[in-house]
Amino acid sequence: MSEIDQALQTIFSVDSELYRSRGFMRRIGFGERPALIHIDLANAWTRPGNAFSCDRMETIIPGVQRLNGAARARGIPIVYTTTAYAVTEGPGSDMGLWHRKIPVEVLQLGSEAVAIDERIAPEPGEHVVVKKHASAFFGTNVASMLHAAAVDTVIITGVTMAGCVRHTTEDAIGLGFRPIVVRECVGDRVPGVVEWNLFDIDAKFGDVESLETVLGFLAGLASLPGRDAPA
Amino acid sequence: MSEIDQALQTIFSVDSELYRSRGFMRRIGFGERPALIHIDLANAWTRPGNAFSCDRMETIIPGVQRLNGAARARGIPIVYTTTAYAVTEGPGSDMGLWHRKIPVEVLQLGSEAVAIDERIAPEPGEHVVVKKHASAFFGTNVASMLHAAAVDTVIITGVTMAGCVRHTTEDAIGLGFRPIVVRECVGDRVPGVVEWNLFDIDAKFGDVESLETVLGFLAGLASLPGRDAPA
Amino acid sequence: MSEIDQALQTIFSVDSELYRSRGFMRRIGFGERPALIHIDLANAWTRPGNAFSCDRMETIIPGVQRLNGAARARGIPIVYTTTAYAVTEGPGSDMGLWHRKIPVEVLQLGSEAVAIDERIAPEPGEHVVVKKHASAFFGTNVASMLHAAAVDTVIITGVTMAGCVRHTTEDAIGLGFRPIVVRECVGDRVPGVVEWNLFDIDAKFGDVESLETVLGFLAGLASLPGRDAPA
Amino acid sequence: MSEIDQALQTIFSVDSELYRSRGFMRRIGFGERPALIHIDLANAWTRPGNAFSCDRMETIIPGVQRLNGAARARGIPIVYTTTAYAVTEGPGSDMGLWHRKIPVEVLQLGSEAVAIDERIAPEPGEHVVVKKHASAFFGTNVASMLHAAAVDTVIITGVTMAGCVRHTTEDAIGLGFRPIVVRECVGDRVPGVVEWNLFDIDAKFGDVESLETVLGFLAGLASLPGRDAPA
Repeated sequence: MSEIDQALQTIFSVDSELYRSRGFMRRIGFGERPALIHIDLANAWTRPGNAFSCDRMETIIPGVQRLNGAARARGIPIVYTTTAYAVTEGPGSDMGLWHRKIPVEVLQLGSEAVAIDERIAPEPGEHVVVKKHASAFFGTNVASMLHAAAVDTVIITGVTMAGCVRHTTEDAIGLGFRPIVVRECVGDRVPGVVEWNLFDIDAKFGDVESLETVLGFLAGLASLPGRDAPA
Repeated sequence: MSEIDQALQTIFSVDSELYRSRGFMRRIGFGERPALIHIDLANAWTRPGNAFSCDRMETIIPGVQRLNGAARARGIPIVYTTTAYAVTEGPGSDMGLWHRKIPVEVLQLGSEAVAIDERIAPEPGEHVVVKKHASAFFGTNVASMLHAAAVDTVIITGVTMAGCVRHTTEDAIGLGFRPIVVRECVGDRVPGVVEWNLFDIDAKFGDVESLETVLGFLAGLASLPGRDAPA
Repeated sequence: MSEIDQALQTIFSVDSELYRSRGFMRRIGFGERPALIHIDLANAWTRPGNAFSCDRMETIIPGVQRLNGAARARGIPIVYTTTAYAVTEGPGSDMGLWHRKIPVEVLQLGSEAVAIDERIAPEPGEHVVVKKHASAFFGTNVASMLHAAAVDTVIITGVTMAGCVRHTTEDAIGLGFRPIVVRECVGDRVPGVVEWNLFDIDAKFGDVESLETVLGFLAGLASLPGRDAPA
Repeated sequence: MSEIDQALQTIFSVDSELYRSRGFMRRIGFGERPALIHIDLANAWTRPGNAFSCDRMETIIPGVQRLNGAARARGIPIVYTTTAYAVTEGPGSDMGLWHRKIPVEVLQLGSEAVAIDERIAPEPGEHVVVKKHASAFFGTNVASMLHAAAVDTVIITGVTMAGCVRHTTEDAIGLGFRPIVVRECVGDRVPGVVEWNLFDIDAKFGDVESLETVLGFLAGLASLPGRDAPA
């Protein structure tokens, strides 16, 4: 794969020069009230043997564990998404049209495949949101919930980079959140696709930052009392 | 209550005259591909003893049973909503801000209270959608799913008329569905509120029709093969 | 009209008692970063002679002028909406289905009728948003823009109470904004409808407050520097 | 550029094999009621000298002209988008957070730069929609309008492939439209980015088809009377 990576780096170098000369690739920066959003880190994606299985879990899972530790210590909201369907046959399926492109019919609601990987298991008070489309915000309550909690920054991890992570990031900036994508904590299943999509994202939609940078940002935050606690 | 009803009828009569003279209160009519949407007919609303308990269930439940029978005979999609929350304490609740107005903290996800009333139990292939806000379409996949199935008309029942049924209807016409509200199959919990909201809806957002009219419409439809059946 | 009002007050008194005993009608309260949203205060609604003409402008317009003065002194965002259509004939109109209920075909984009009333003319830096449906948030950029500016409270005025003001308020709380409806600054065109809809809103979706209370809140705010100023 | 293209083709060949073996890259196919959506074919993107200027207009513009001719002959809805901002200074801008990544401050509402290129000028009855974010559907009325007109397929052209065209396509399938991206009629401004994003789209979100295939599909359609014509 190093040949592929080398070819991509050559392209990105040319492209970055043009983008920068035109005023693209700016830094959006961190805000003051972050949330973590972990995209589709459920068994169908994190374990081998599924049509949706992804690579790099040996790096992604430990990274997410560290992020969760830092977030929990400060009361920062954590949202996990999974993609799952209740009705996978017949007309009126909740898959909509997506099964006409990809094999979402294997993602049965309630199955072990769509449960969050237990190595990064959600704790009480954290959110597991079932989505039907690529973006974590599309047809879900995630944006409303985070806005009500005055979140201004979404730190994004998970899979797949070319699918759900990318669409989530594009939506996030439109919704008024600062998107930060954690470079070591995103994955996919074919060569080159992580790098290319990180490049596009960093150019136009959100900042791609290293795990260490994000952990450093979280370490610098005071514990958040949460301004929307039920009275 | 008949005094209240009489007072309201007097008001509606005056108001209707003005509306009609100005070109409001038009008929949107039925389309060709309906779906049923039953709003929050879960135990917290349909049974006594809950803060959310509503009236008129002796009329609403049999009406919904008849509608379901007609829809099932023709393969028409049926969607049930319920309103329920996973996290009802602390910051970052999925209640958002709504608990600051109404007691949504009693609607615990997974509890018997938020399960659909078994007298109108969903059958396999029908959808139960958990929503967090008033409209069935707000922060849910319902519109996407129905659009993918080429639905053009939504037949709406349930509770409460002044809350979730009304907001659902307002959204429905905006989303490009013809909203039909079934007069006998909607309810609420305080006097006058059903009548007033039906009046507003019929003037501006959707057609209010009798149960018999809606059953007649369904009876006239051929069985729908569903143009979006998975291949 | 006093008979109607009296009948309504009797109903509301009974209804409020039931709502309060069940934990409804809570106070959402003001947040820290408000915006003003003036719904459809354009000539078709504020001047006589149009199908959409509303009452009470002698109270609404001066109230809005006072709110604008207070907001401008503190750099608080002001959003005006109007409802207007570019294509009012043939298939594929931007009216969608709404012309099947109400006479939106008279609201021609670019006409004097849909321009904001000059007595409350927008100033540079304020937003005039053309919407196609009832809610100010439906199919518009308003929520995104206000969220990006960290707004947490929307102060709502305008018309009509039973249509666009109500739908806007229902959406606002779902989107994570605290909705405050200014009692003296909302209107409609048929008897009773303002009072009833204010009652429903106050019970479930947002706080209905007097103009003096809202002006008092604004007077207590420091000038807002705006955390999202372009760098 | 041929070296870059060659490197990409090698990657795509490997990736496609894996995708196909897992059941991705399915064909969504054409529906029965299409609309054309032309993304940001305004002067800032179609003419040289702007930060947003794109390549390939010598191919894109004639292709769009042919598509428009075929669509107009059959009464198929045509939607043009442009991206433009009314307030580009101070807090509360309608740019939201996007100016923190890319130079949207040059896209002034009402300027020649954001007007649709006159070589493909809209005709009466066609829609020009001003959007604020990447997707044609985000914060706009486009989905509602097309759903009300019973559109089931969106034929997408324009720029940029890695930005607005891609986000539009991802949203389209979620909204229940079949997305068809016209290979010859999309562009961008840096090497490799069109090819990579077409590859991702075709794998997961919509069908990438040649101009001739799309023209053939349109030629086979009867003229559409439009089921939502105002009465």
